[in-house]
Formats: sequence, structure tokens, C-alpha cells
Amino acid sequence: MYRAGDVRIENVPDARIIESTDGLIRISAACICGSDLWPYKELKAEEHGRRMGHEAIGVVESVGADVRTMKPGDVVVMPFAYSDGTCSFCQEGLNTSCVHGGFFGVGGPADGAQAEALRVPQADGTLFVLPAGRDKALMPSLLTLSDVMGTGHHAARSARVSKGKEVAVIGDGAVGLCGIVAARRLGAEQIIVLGHHPDRIALAKEFGATDVVKERGQDAVERVRELTGGFGAHSILECVGTEQAMLSAIGMARPGGAVGRVGVPHYEAIPASQPAFYNNVTVSGGPAPVRAYIKELLPDILEGRIQPGRVFDQTVSLDDVPNGYRAMNERRSIKVMVTP
Amino acid sequence: MYRAGDVRIENVPDARIIESTDGLIRISAACICGSDLWPYKELKAEEHGRRMGHEAIGVVESVGADVRTMKPGDVVVMPFAYSDGTCSFCQEGLNTSCVHGGFFGVGGPADGAQAEALRVPQADGTLFVLPAGRDKALMPSLLTLSDVMGTGHHAARSARVSKGKEVAVIGDGAVGLCGIVAARRLGAEQIIVLGHHPDRIALAKEFGATDVVKERGQDAVERVRELTGGFGAHSILECVGTEQAMLSAIGMARPGGAVGRVGVPHYEAIPASQPAFYNNVTVSGGPAPVRAYIKELLPDILEGRIQPGRVFDQTVSLDDVPNGYRAMNERRSIKVMVTP
Repeated sequence: MYRAGDVRIENVPDARIIESTDGLIRISAACICGSDLWPYKELKAEEHGRRMGHEAIGVVESVGADVRTMKPGDVVVMPFAYSDGTCSFCQEGLNTSCVHGGFFGVGGPADGAQAEALRVPQADGTLFVLPAGRDKALMPSLLTLSDVMGTGHHAARSARVSKGKEVAVIGDGAVGLCGIVAARRLGAEQIIVLGHHPDRIALAKEFGATDVVKERGQDAVERVRELTGGFGAHSILECVGTEQAMLSAIGMARPGGAVGRVGVPHYEAIPASQPAFYNNVTVSGGPAPVRAYIKELLPDILEGRIQPGRVFDQTVSLDDVPNGYRAMNERRSIKVMVTP
Repeated sequence: MYRAGDVRIENVPDARIIESTDGLIRISAACICGSDLWPYKELKAEEHGRRMGHEAIGVVESVGADVRTMKPGDVVVMPFAYSDGTCSFCQEGLNTSCVHGGFFGVGGPADGAQAEALRVPQADGTLFVLPAGRDKALMPSLLTLSDVMGTGHHAARSARVSKGKEVAVIGDGAVGLCGIVAARRLGAEQIIVLGHHPDRIALAKEFGATDVVKERGQDAVERVRELTGGFGAHSILECVGTEQAMLSAIGMARPGGAVGRVGVPHYEAIPASQPAFYNNVTVSGGPAPVRAYIKELLPDILEGRIQPGRVFDQTVSLDDVPNGYRAMNERRSIKVMVTP
């Protein structure tokens, strides 16, 4: 991506092992992420372009001398952040704060996954080797473990969803939809989705949404309060990242409730006083440590209890990635899979 | 209080029972609170004045027809908020969001406790009857259950203090000092206090502070990071309520850590993005549901394990309340007790 709206497919030198802790993977499937749409809307001109993409399933092609937990031929999930797996943050399950970590596809030292192959730093800590003998139909759902499903789960965990809770999900994009899957999985009793695209709402309901709120802004806040006995929901999953979404989230939280935010914030600040403070509303969340969540979520995918892969409604080849960006940006597609 | 700086002692009609759920108490001891200093600095002229004070120990003088749990002569702690004790929020331990609740001494329907006597709405849900036969020396510590000790505990709970955690306490006022008591009680391994008044620091150390940071602003953030292995503290107790305090709190939180804020916010907003979001820092807190905490904290006071009453370093008569405000406002006193 050279600037907002300018996505090009280019031949670059082959990816290769640089550090002894690297792994080299051949990409089986990657994605376009809702967060990729921020630079697609806003990126200023970058001379050398930015290699995009941070979600993938791939096949290990080679590994550095110090990589211990995988071998060529292994099929792996690649989370959007790389991490060593051994530092105190990784041990605590916060891989996104790894002291040797970083992010793919943001113009930093790691390249992007919308590619044929990719060098993965800290391969042992980053890549998750999938068990052999999977049904190929599971691939889309397994691919969501690289970001959206783990991010929806992080929103739900940060918003303290548990059995019997009333939950509101702001955002009917792929993360919001995965947030619904996560909230249901964690035992929510009521799941209110805020959105108004018929196809997304239909999927939200199949994922477990019990109520739909089509209003926006203060009207949406009032409607959620009505649906929750007048007080607001225990847990709000803020899966958008705009100021309006955060304001609504705080407004529709029940006193003592929690907002889990995972949308990259495109706003300056969270209002500090009314009602967040006086209602003892907790605001939590950030980049999801999806690597830490794979172990918990994988069995539910392998055994068919959750199907987050249904968020993919379009697949493009590498050459068609620019069209994929357009489709997502115009909200014609919920989430695009890229198969090189 | 008629306006900023203008505190008067006036004769008013005797307090009396109005609702059948009221209790009437004779005040044994009240306090001046750090939060009373905000109107003392900022209150605009109010024609009828505001009856101040929201912390008290008193003796029940009479009760309305529907009050069941106390009788004249009982000694009670009065939390700064009144609450019915039966609504869903009270049942959840969030009495400050009671559907029939409110606050004392803020110019609302309930009067203030810097007085000889006071009508207490929702007496059954609000007042906590103390066991008979107490040592009179315990009174100051029991009085802190009406606000500061419960508020310090709420800061610590909101900041998720638990065994072995590294804690930073912003504010060396009475709430910050009680936050230290609370953090130690909850098992914190390291307790860093930010402050620079020698007498307060001395008391902070006796309460359990392990480190003192006298720097302010970004220097304080750096110093706390140094003291915590470079990453920041797990739990930050924000006991001030200024924008600078909140900025520092977020800055000195370890990734994945939590800020518990109990200082009434005198700022517009919490910065939304770096570092709160990227570090997955949780911001929690609000008015402390001190009524819900009395049961947990009382045994430790009765058995002498904690002595939060040591925050009182000055006692004034009712006539001397204006001097008490001055002393606290000029930081010559940590906390003033009022004995009518």
C-alpha cells in the first residue's frame, strides 16, 4: 500500500530466514482486516510502500537453527503479532506486549501476510502448529484464530462476559460478529447487536444475537437500556474504534459494568466523568493477545461448536487484493480471504 | 458553604424523621473530606448555602416506622451515600448506584454530616450498626469506614491489587494513605507512594509503603518504571482526580495492568490511545460502595490489624469547622475530624 486507496501487487525479493529464531512460511490463506481499512482510508504517501496483512495460515517451509517446535511441512496459524513466548508478558498471556515482539504488516521490521511467503520472527513463540488431519472445511474458522476470533474473544473477556450476563456488541463487522460468537460461548444470556446491514444481522443472529438495535448514537443507548430493564448491559464489546462507538459503549453500560474495546482507537480520549466514573464503569481492552487464546478456542472449532469462519464472504487471489480492499471498504464484503 | 472559601456555622431547624424509612442520628464524629475541598475551591455562590459533610459515626436517636435493623442508642457508621440495601445494585455490592440512593452533603435532598444531628434516608440500607463494647480508641479508624478507608479499598480493588503485586499509589492524602493500608492488606509485595510531604510520607511508610517517589509528572512515571523492573506497576491507585494524576497513572501501569481511580475527576477525558490501549491497561473505579465494604474491613479494625484512623491529625469542634477547611486546603492537615 503506497497511500490511501493505492494497493499494488508487486514482485519483491523472496522472503528468507534472517535470524536463527525465524520461521519461513508459505501462505495458504491470508485476510484483509478491518484495521487494514484505516490506512486504506488515511495512509499518507510512503515512498517504498507498506507490505500489508497480518493474519495467515501457512505451511512451514524452513526454520532457523534455534527453532525447536516446528518443522517444514507443519501447518501453522500466524497471529497478527509476533512474540517470543518466553518473556514475562508472554507467560502472563499478554503476547502483544512481548519484550521481543512486534506486529506484522504495519510498516515495521516484519513484512505482511498478503503475500506468497513470509518471514516470521520468533517462530517458536509466534506460530501455532495445527494438529494434522483436519477437515479442509475448517480452514476459514482456523484462519480466524490469527486475529478476528481471538479479538472478539478479547473484547468479551475484557468486558467480563460470563454466564447469565447481558451483553451489547457495538459493530457488525467481522470482529463484532466474532464477539457475538465469543459472548455466547462464555455463557451470555442476552446478546444485543448494534448494526443495520441485513446480511450481517442475519449472521449475527445465527451466531447467537438475541436482539438487534438499528438505531445509532443516543437512540441506540436508550434502546439498549430499554432492552436491559432500564439499566444498561453488564458487558459492552466496543468493536469499532470511533469516538461515537466509545461514547455509546459507556452510555449503555450498566453501573458496575465493563466496556471491552478492541477497535483501534481513532479518537483522542474517553470521557472521564459522567457516566463512566459515577457509574463505576470499567474500560478495558487493547490489542488482543490472540496467540494466548488459540489453545482455548481451537477445540471448539475442531469439534464444530463454533464457526467463526463464516465471517468470510469473499475470497480473492493475490492479484485481486485491491478489489478485496474496495469490497470491504464499501462494506460489500464482511471479510475477505486471500488465497495466493 | 455559601461559596468557595465561605464556610459558616448556622443554626437550622432540628433534623427530623420525614419518611418512614428514615433514621435520625446524633453525630458523634464527622469529617472534612478531600472531596469537600473541591467546592471549597470552586463553589459558585449558592443563595441558601450547602450543608456539608458526608462521613460520620453517630448514635441513633429515633427511627421511622419501617426501620427494622436498628433502635435508639445504637452506634452506627454512616457511609457517604445512602442506599436501600435491597435493589439489585445494592445486592451486587454497588450501593453507590442504588435506585433509591443518593449522596450526603452535596446540596441534594440529603443534608450534611458536619452538624449536630442528621436525617438519614433509607436507614436500614445505609447505616451500619457497630457491635457494642468497643474501645473508644478505635473510633477514628471506625470513622474511616464511612469513606476514606472504603474508598482506598475501592481504589485497590478496582486496580486489581492481589498477593505479590507491584502497586503505585498516586496521592498522599487521606485516601491515598488508606489505599496503602488496603494494598498491603490485599497482599501487595511492593507499594510505591507518590508524594512529598514528610509527615504524610512517614505515615505512608508506617502503613506499608516500600518506596517513595517524590518526582512529579513524566519524571515520576520514569521513576516508578525503574522501581518495577522497567515495565511499570501492576496496579495504580489514582487518588487525586486531576488530569495529570490520571496521565501519570496510565503511564506508570505495566502492560496488562489496571488503574483504580477514586478521586472525583476534575478533568475532561482519559487519553484513549497510547499507552492505555496498546498496553491493555484497564481503567476502573468510581464512587466507592463503602457500605458494601464495611463488613469485610471491620474485623481488621476491631482486632487492630489496620489503623486507618491515624490519618486524622487534627480535631475541631463544630464552631471551628472553617479553620478545619483552611488547614486541609493549605495541606497543614491530612484529615480533620469534627466532634460536635
